[in-house]
Amino acid sequence: MKAVILLSGGLDSATVLYQAQADGCDCYALSFDYQQRHRRELTAARTIAQCAGVIDHQVVSFDLRQWGGSALTDVEIDLPQSRSLAEMSQTIPVTYVPARNTIFLSFALAYGETIAAERVYLGVNSLDYSGYPDCRPDYIQAMQTVFQLGTKQGREGTAIAIVTPLITLKKTAIIELGDRLGVPWELTWSCYAGGDEACGTCDACQLRLTAFAELGRTDPIPYGLNRNPQASL
Amino acid sequence: MKAVILLSGGLDSATVLYQAQADGCDCYALSFDYQQRHRRELTAARTIAQCAGVIDHQVVSFDLRQWGGSALTDVEIDLPQSRSLAEMSQTIPVTYVPARNTIFLSFALAYGETIAAERVYLGVNSLDYSGYPDCRPDYIQAMQTVFQLGTKQGREGTAIAIVTPLITLKKTAIIELGDRLGVPWELTWSCYAGGDEACGTCDACQLRLTAFAELGRTDPIPYGLNRNPQASL
Repeated sequence: MKAVILLSGGLDSATVLYQAQADGCDCYALSFDYQQRHRRELTAARTIAQCAGVIDHQVVSFDLRQWGGSALTDVEIDLPQSRSLAEMSQTIPVTYVPARNTIFLSFALAYGETIAAERVYLGVNSLDYSGYPDCRPDYIQAMQTVFQLGTKQGREGTAIAIVTPLITLKKTAIIELGDRLGVPWELTWSCYAGGDEACGTCDACQLRLTAFAELGRTDPIPYGLNRNPQASL
Repeated sequence: MKAVILLSGGLDSATVLYQAQADGCDCYALSFDYQQRHRRELTAARTIAQCAGVIDHQVVSFDLRQWGGSALTDVEIDLPQSRSLAEMSQTIPVTYVPARNTIFLSFALAYGETIAAERVYLGVNSLDYSGYPDCRPDYIQAMQTVFQLGTKQGREGTAIAIVTPLITLKKTAIIELGDRLGVPWELTWSCYAGGDEACGTCDACQLRLTAFAELGRTDPIPYGLNRNPQASL
């Protein structure tokens, strides 16, 4: 069974890739160079895809700086720093990229239909969906309908299924799942800041540092001088 | 009222742009260079956008030849030639590009949310939707739900509305509408073949030649030596 795996290079998508392999899928990874501030994540995605032994890894390039609208695509918008998980969950953050998951899933649908895939795996999870509109279950269901009605494959046969194994999991549970699947955490990359080492203070760093700390573990990736070693629990 | 207009440079999208202006919208055109065989259409889109006096015209570039899967993105797949409208409507043709409208609408959603647009105009019509799955009303409705659930704007306020003024119109009715709106037909481009002059025999040429002929008119764009002057009625 062929599956397209949306692979950003972070904890979640790496776990999803290993889950897809555990599910018996032939995995085709798909990543995006959208001129994001943290294009460093693409190096992580390539290394993880290679390490997992995917059948193919496509990187689609386009430039969302054309219109900006997010701290991840407009360097003049500052990244939030050292926020607690409670603060993150209150509003949709400036790191929200308009329609990003819709764009990603659209390309996954195009790639998936072309290779006759049966599944698309996406690593959205319960932490993300508290803040991002395009990580919530009702949104995923709406995209599933698009997968059915918007393709030849969906109209004439069986639509590609969107699979979201992490959607109800917290970050600690994702790490525990990834441990069982053998995910190489040291190869993953989450930091939004765009440096060669993770900043330790952006929302993405806070989320993973906090989760590893809650499990009594040390995050194995290198952090720069600004790192807040306690994270904010 | 701001509106994003998906502008390919063909008859339909040009008519939709002029309709949006007649509807009182401030128009922001959006086109795609996906390395399509007929990239010549982008020149038409730029000229029409300029002629119509849009506020902005964005061209997003990516490469769908990465995985092909369509006669428009893989030159090794031959274009159908000299087919009648009846033949075109029987099956989904090889010029179908997997998930193309989903990709286009996703970028329109991203651009639209960033500029706080209220509408996205799309020139799908009844001729297209007989063949293409992603031109049919139920598909458009599914994308409308995605517009509502997949964005901050849709969750917190009013979703961008997808407007499809041509969806029930035949090509002859579209030309009559465009005549009333003052669409400069001589600037439009439909041919799939990729030459400097329209081929006159691909499905896209057949559709417009047939419609102009049915109206007792001459299509004002230049056709190459292969042109079938009668089209197939």
